[in-house]
Amino acid sequence: MNTRIPGRPTHRFEVRFSGSGGQGLITAAIIFAEAVGVYNGHYVCQTQSYGPEARGGRSKAEVVISDEPIDYPKALKLDLLLAMNQQACDSYFYDLQPNGLLVVDSGLVEQFPTSRIIAVPFTEIARDEIGRELVANMVALGTVGVLSSLVSIENLEKALLARVPRGTEEINKKALSRGIEEANKVSLDSLPRAVMSDEDEV
Amino acid sequence: MNTRIPGRPTHRFEVRFSGSGGQGLITAAIIFAEAVGVYNGHYVCQTQSYGPEARGGRSKAEVVISDEPIDYPKALKLDLLLAMNQQACDSYFYDLQPNGLLVVDSGLVEQFPTSRIIAVPFTEIARDEIGRELVANMVALGTVGVLSSLVSIENLEKALLARVPRGTEEINKKALSRGIEEANKVSLDSLPRAVMSDEDEV
Repeated sequence: MNTRIPGRPTHRFEVRFSGSGGQGLITAAIIFAEAVGVYNGHYVCQTQSYGPEARGGRSKAEVVISDEPIDYPKALKLDLLLAMNQQACDSYFYDLQPNGLLVVDSGLVEQFPTSRIIAVPFTEIARDEIGRELVANMVALGTVGVLSSLVSIENLEKALLARVPRGTEEINKKALSRGIEEANKVSLDSLPRAVMSDEDEV
Repeated sequence: MNTRIPGRPTHRFEVRFSGSGGQGLITAAIIFAEAVGVYNGHYVCQTQSYGPEARGGRSKAEVVISDEPIDYPKALKLDLLLAMNQQACDSYFYDLQPNGLLVVDSGLVEQFPTSRIIAVPFTEIARDEIGRELVANMVALGTVGVLSSLVSIENLEKALLARVPRGTEEINKKALSRGIEEANKVSLDSLPRAVMSDEDEV
């Protein structure tokens, strides 16, 4: 049920980008959605909701990917959750599939809810290596893009260049590349697996 | 059924921003959604879909507004349609409510499907008066914002300033103001009304 062929969602693949307002998570979600949908040819629906839950500067953006037209565009059970702060990690961890991927900013999330986690210091990399904290979202996008197995690096870059403000292409590309590099260090097979019922087993 | 108190959607109010890729319609939709949701306090869901229909540079972004949590986030029957080119106007006109508002760029849409239309030369205003065609989306946002009656001008401006690239605040604010000005020239009561069945009458 949870096996997926890289690049080919069997039915739905759901990703949530979460953190604080101002971290650029909606932009990251849109670029990811465009890379997967327009350039990589899947059906994609990208959503953000505002309301009482958006108060206090919380930010959340979702991308649902499918090989079929998407009937319900909001995420139901996440395959991948990016949490760019502790609150987002705590609130949304329970929306993950049993063996879904949890990706966190290790400089901003201190308490991990599970050992099945991919922790990368996105904001620190953006600030200290790229020289601009604002592009932490693009570092994270690089990591999420590779880990999703749904998009080629070339298309991710193409979508990024089409949407970032003119004059910031280079710095954003550099940020994306650093995120891709971080993802390539991760061995998904070495992550602990959640205990599943027989029903969930493949 | 179609009467609405300005600023208070009785149940759902649905808006679609449509045109070509590169016209900045997703950005306009996001700013509108944030103005209505975060600053004006409604429940808001903002969506874009990519897939076969997004091919050929078509672009479409939706905002659904409600006083209650939103169960289904995609638009079902539009209350307001912004069409920034002929193709978008032709394709989406039939998704409008009988007395929904059709707003078009009068320089880019030549054939009107109805006389119940609000036609403003958004792109021409942006190019000739503001000096930058790229901000046509913000001119349109000003017009759509006022005509929706869902958001204050102050909050629309606040949401815009929070999201446009640094250094472009003034030109975007100017574009928004021109769009607001155009909306204020429109007399909604003088628009022809669609013929409705008894069921639809108020």
